[in-house]
Amino acid sequence: MSEVKVGIIGATGYGGLELIRFLHNHSEVESIELFTSSDAGAIFSSKFGHLVAIQDQPLQEIEIDKLSKFDVVFTSTPSGVTSSLLPPLVGVGPKLIDLSGDYRLKDIRSYEKWYKKTAAPEHIVSESVYGLTEWNAQRIKESNLIANPGCYPTAVLLSILPLIKDRLIDSQNLIIDAKSGVSGAGNKPSQLTHFSEMNENFSIYKINEHQHIPEIEQAIEMFADVQTTISFNTHLVPMTRGILATTYAPILSGVTNKQLNDCLIESYKNHPFVRVVQDVSSLGTNRVKGSNYCDIFVKLDDRTNRATIVGVIDNLVKGAAGQAIQNMNVQFNLPETLGLDVIPLFI
Amino acid sequence: MSEVKVGIIGATGYGGLELIRFLHNHSEVESIELFTSSDAGAIFSSKFGHLVAIQDQPLQEIEIDKLSKFDVVFTSTPSGVTSSLLPPLVGVGPKLIDLSGDYRLKDIRSYEKWYKKTAAPEHIVSESVYGLTEWNAQRIKESNLIANPGCYPTAVLLSILPLIKDRLIDSQNLIIDAKSGVSGAGNKPSQLTHFSEMNENFSIYKINEHQHIPEIEQAIEMFADVQTTISFNTHLVPMTRGILATTYAPILSGVTNKQLNDCLIESYKNHPFVRVVQDVSSLGTNRVKGSNYCDIFVKLDDRTNRATIVGVIDNLVKGAAGQAIQNMNVQFNLPETLGLDVIPLFI
Amino acid sequence: MSEVKVGIIGATGYGGLELIRFLHNHSEVESIELFTSSDAGAIFSSKFGHLVAIQDQPLQEIEIDKLSKFDVVFTSTPSGVTSSLLPPLVGVGPKLIDLSGDYRLKDIRSYEKWYKKTAAPEHIVSESVYGLTEWNAQRIKESNLIANPGCYPTAVLLSILPLIKDRLIDSQNLIIDAKSGVSGAGNKPSQLTHFSEMNENFSIYKINEHQHIPEIEQAIEMFADVQTTISFNTHLVPMTRGILATTYAPILSGVTNKQLNDCLIESYKNHPFVRVVQDVSSLGTNRVKGSNYCDIFVKLDDRTNRATIVGVIDNLVKGAAGQAIQNMNVQFNLPETLGLDVIPLFI
Amino acid sequence: MSEVKVGIIGATGYGGLELIRFLHNHSEVESIELFTSSDAGAIFSSKFGHLVAIQDQPLQEIEIDKLSKFDVVFTSTPSGVTSSLLPPLVGVGPKLIDLSGDYRLKDIRSYEKWYKKTAAPEHIVSESVYGLTEWNAQRIKESNLIANPGCYPTAVLLSILPLIKDRLIDSQNLIIDAKSGVSGAGNKPSQLTHFSEMNENFSIYKINEHQHIPEIEQAIEMFADVQTTISFNTHLVPMTRGILATTYAPILSGVTNKQLNDCLIESYKNHPFVRVVQDVSSLGTNRVKGSNYCDIFVKLDDRTNRATIVGVIDNLVKGAAGQAIQNMNVQFNLPETLGLDVIPLFI
Repeated sequence: MSEVKVGIIGATGYGGLELIRFLHNHSEVESIELFTSSDAGAIFSSKFGHLVAIQDQPLQEIEIDKLSKFDVVFTSTPSGVTSSLLPPLVGVGPKLIDLSGDYRLKDIRSYEKWYKKTAAPEHIVSESVYGLTEWNAQRIKESNLIANPGCYPTAVLLSILPLIKDRLIDSQNLIIDAKSGVSGAGNKPSQLTHFSEMNENFSIYKINEHQHIPEIEQAIEMFADVQTTISFNTHLVPMTRGILATTYAPILSGVTNKQLNDCLIESYKNHPFVRVVQDVSSLGTNRVKGSNYCDIFVKLDDRTNRATIVGVIDNLVKGAAGQAIQNMNVQFNLPETLGLDVIPLFI
Repeated sequence: MSEVKVGIIGATGYGGLELIRFLHNHSEVESIELFTSSDAGAIFSSKFGHLVAIQDQPLQEIEIDKLSKFDVVFTSTPSGVTSSLLPPLVGVGPKLIDLSGDYRLKDIRSYEKWYKKTAAPEHIVSESVYGLTEWNAQRIKESNLIANPGCYPTAVLLSILPLIKDRLIDSQNLIIDAKSGVSGAGNKPSQLTHFSEMNENFSIYKINEHQHIPEIEQAIEMFADVQTTISFNTHLVPMTRGILATTYAPILSGVTNKQLNDCLIESYKNHPFVRVVQDVSSLGTNRVKGSNYCDIFVKLDDRTNRATIVGVIDNLVKGAAGQAIQNMNVQFNLPETLGLDVIPLFI
Repeated sequence: MSEVKVGIIGATGYGGLELIRFLHNHSEVESIELFTSSDAGAIFSSKFGHLVAIQDQPLQEIEIDKLSKFDVVFTSTPSGVTSSLLPPLVGVGPKLIDLSGDYRLKDIRSYEKWYKKTAAPEHIVSESVYGLTEWNAQRIKESNLIANPGCYPTAVLLSILPLIKDRLIDSQNLIIDAKSGVSGAGNKPSQLTHFSEMNENFSIYKINEHQHIPEIEQAIEMFADVQTTISFNTHLVPMTRGILATTYAPILSGVTNKQLNDCLIESYKNHPFVRVVQDVSSLGTNRVKGSNYCDIFVKLDDRTNRATIVGVIDNLVKGAAGQAIQNMNVQFNLPETLGLDVIPLFI
Repeated sequence: MSEVKVGIIGATGYGGLELIRFLHNHSEVESIELFTSSDAGAIFSSKFGHLVAIQDQPLQEIEIDKLSKFDVVFTSTPSGVTSSLLPPLVGVGPKLIDLSGDYRLKDIRSYEKWYKKTAAPEHIVSESVYGLTEWNAQRIKESNLIANPGCYPTAVLLSILPLIKDRLIDSQNLIIDAKSGVSGAGNKPSQLTHFSEMNENFSIYKINEHQHIPEIEQAIEMFADVQTTISFNTHLVPMTRGILATTYAPILSGVTNKQLNDCLIESYKNHPFVRVVQDVSSLGTNRVKGSNYCDIFVKLDDRTNRATIVGVIDNLVKGAAGQAIQNMNVQFNLPETLGLDVIPLFI
């Protein structure tokens, strides 16, 4: 008995397309309507040939009245849009799940510094709940405004939070080296993402300056109760989907490889989308491609007494649309895996 | 109420992995068991990390007794295996769906010439039904042995058969130029498919000699009732999934572009997986990626009076596992789209 | 003793970058200066990091006076630019080698129809010489205005011209199916060439309408003395460099596979950049990557009495900058291979 | 006046192919002969189609007598081969440049631990000179046995050595996160490097266990006179060529971003192949593709007081064949850039 009516703002972006892809197979979703800031009236499938005969409805203009009637509204827009778009919708009806960065940072001065944009109203930001599902389900269930986590923070936090919380690694010396497929840069063409210049080219970008840095630091404080300053860099991989984040952290005195692994296993034993990988010589993003899984791995390097911690996700799924739907499931008291129980593509 | 018990032989190949991926979300499948000619006893997910916590059963040895109890057995093996493996299973219980080329060619001398292997017993080959679902559903429904079509023939035949059958194009002068992603070459490493040598390298292979030539010619005769000899070549594209086949055919006198398009539209109006694409300046394999769709297109070149006909599929889905499950659905009187109603990935 | 002074207009495009790459190692080139229609004054290497410490000169504004002093000026601009840019430079000093399509089509109405742009002045177009080096060296040597061939025509013409000229294949039924890496689309970002949408996506584009069609037909008439109307389509391969063109042509009565091969071998025995490939089961674009070679192949399909003819080039080298330099060498009575004698990268 | 006679053992590997590619344009090389442990007698271009008409000589069997007559012998073989192959050639004539790992580690117990193979004779290892050209030219000039550096160590060491030597960063807390294109894994097919499984898959491998760890530590001691234990991990990027290594190091008290950059600039001011990159928001491997350049970059993160240090190379050129030829140039008192002065491909 499907009964959730869904509105999607920003349907033409990659996050929006993935929401549509997964909600299509969600047994409790009754209807999906699509909204856009431009191009209202256009038939959606005329813009995206893969959706012909599947999603042939017209794009609608964004109007508060229309949006108020939905059970849930997902916003999948560039940063700097929902800061002004969402406030009129707060409290008027639908649950709101924002996939952008506009409601993640509690400190609005930090938002303005890292995003170089005007922040959302502080009292609304303060109400929003950070949607890292495995770590915040209780508050997500009770909230009407979810700040869905960034792609990099999801891969990083799920892999390191248990180890920090259990005081197995030194949270004051975290070096996080993250790598992402190009879809994370969105659907807008640019010189950087022009095929001939991105293909066969691995690059580092936004060196020391990625806006996900304060998000990760805030979440570490929120969930593991320690303040820290991280080293964090991001790289673009010439592939479309996938994030792999490698974290280096000194272990605290006497901690063993088994303790590190046991901690991860114990932390996620009731969380179907987080899988602790063991006994492998290599692991890659194809383990989770197209799925909502986050695979994590830890190994103690006993030469250096540092732990090597790895998290892999599909940036568009667990790092965006998948986790957003997982949060919707939690908000509506549905099984967390509903609509998301698909096998990774692997190839 | 799930009730189909499934056995898969050749589960470790790419066709087998795709069967597992789609059957996982098939509401009428009760169980899946996996068989292999080597490595029996190994936990399946120990070989394929993406299946950890999803498919952790051991691989079983191939034994006729065990296999007899299934409702359906899929065989997804290299050519030359099921020719001897399947005969003992014919008629003893399960419906059989063979994804290899061993039961496709009715003329076993032709099989032996093109495949350079010993053919299956002629009386069994003659019983098998060619599983091009949209064109053969009635016979598929009644058959216990389906020869699932090859990947190239699926893309080619679905796009050209209506035009040949309705006598709009000259079937005696078909030039078919096909291009495939590398997954069509299977999971066995080779110099040709070694990443460094396949990447950034578009190549033509098996020039004039691909074993799908007689399969296409046989199907044209079977479904459109004309004998013909085709020009057919195959190319490898440095990508994993997808086939695009471009066919050039002279139109018969006076035929218009509208007639060509109307023919395709009319032919497939009741077939949800075949979509007739119109009014585009370009079309690519990402329209169907990861899905069971076959998108087809025709355009009359009035300079040459030849039609340019294009068919695109995901070679592993509509060109293999997806169509096999579609055939299973037909055999079990289930809706054709069951388990296969997923949106293409696009990116 | 280097003595050729070179000017390049359109240095920031991919053709321009390849000119710079090869001219850097050309022993007879004394100097290279770079011109642009925008961004004059900018240090070239500030736009292209790979040229730091190699090409640090400023881009110069396009001025006829300055350009007049060069021995040769290459123009590597989008179509529709040199039609008006070059006329003032004709006859005033430098030899001109135009890499765009503006001077290729002798029939300026045909240019305007296919390119949808205003043609260059007819009397100048009529003076220009088509720079298909292996077929037109004598006229190239005597000309001051070279229309450098398009990328697709180069791969197609070099592979089929000998067979047409020697009347071994039926020139009235040529089906040419061509595939190109994405660099052929130039350096300007677009949705089509956005990494996430081009990657893992093989597509057909400009169906039946590519502007290289009249160029190929004109060259067949020019060099093989027959008028014909070809079927020609183009596809984009998710890789950066390389073109492979597959041509299907009926053989004329009684022609053998040996005759086809002998014809190619004989035609190019004195042409170092065209290699006739024999006895292979597959051939790909990595044979010529980064080099000025054009590898060609022919095989008679005796089931259909059609020849399968294949030509492969690096579209940016033999299909653009490399052939342009080869033409410069001819114009200056230098060895054809000067500056171009490099081994293909292969990987 | 060319006068260096070259022998190459292991010509069929990617390192060997790159040696052939560059030596082809080396003005002082008189001849190149190719040797192999298998397949002697085969025409080289019959194995590598891109070399038809360029390198058509037969492969020769490895015989000490024949090899003795060369001026220089390059060995480009998997590890564990030259440990026994080279000793008979030491001192009998040719200068030896070994591209494998067999002569790099002075501590043969360390070699046997990390490589899990029998080490070369200790007295010969002790004679060998580590061929990091920019740091060891004097000893390279005087040596007849060069241990050419590994690909990862080259990118790492060139970027961090000046900062360690000048005591600007804390050498005791180096975290090095390296990423490589797949060609680094060599030309032998495997499941890991099978196109369908490597494509669109970014992975970490040999976690904490890469054999280049002791090589980097040894070189830091050798050239910067400090002992240290590094954290070092390696990742495979779905592309063919290129290494980017990101190093995180705490700065020593009071060091500024300018000091870090000045140190690099000063260190390499007379070294044409090392370019210090400044003022960029991103940098990638296409800056150096196909060339012998190593581009390096440093930026102080003043939030963490750690320096982010980046080195990029083409792993097959500066990380293998290019540096080997650079070392040959030094040994023969030729200009360092001879045969190597090519512009990166960029695309």
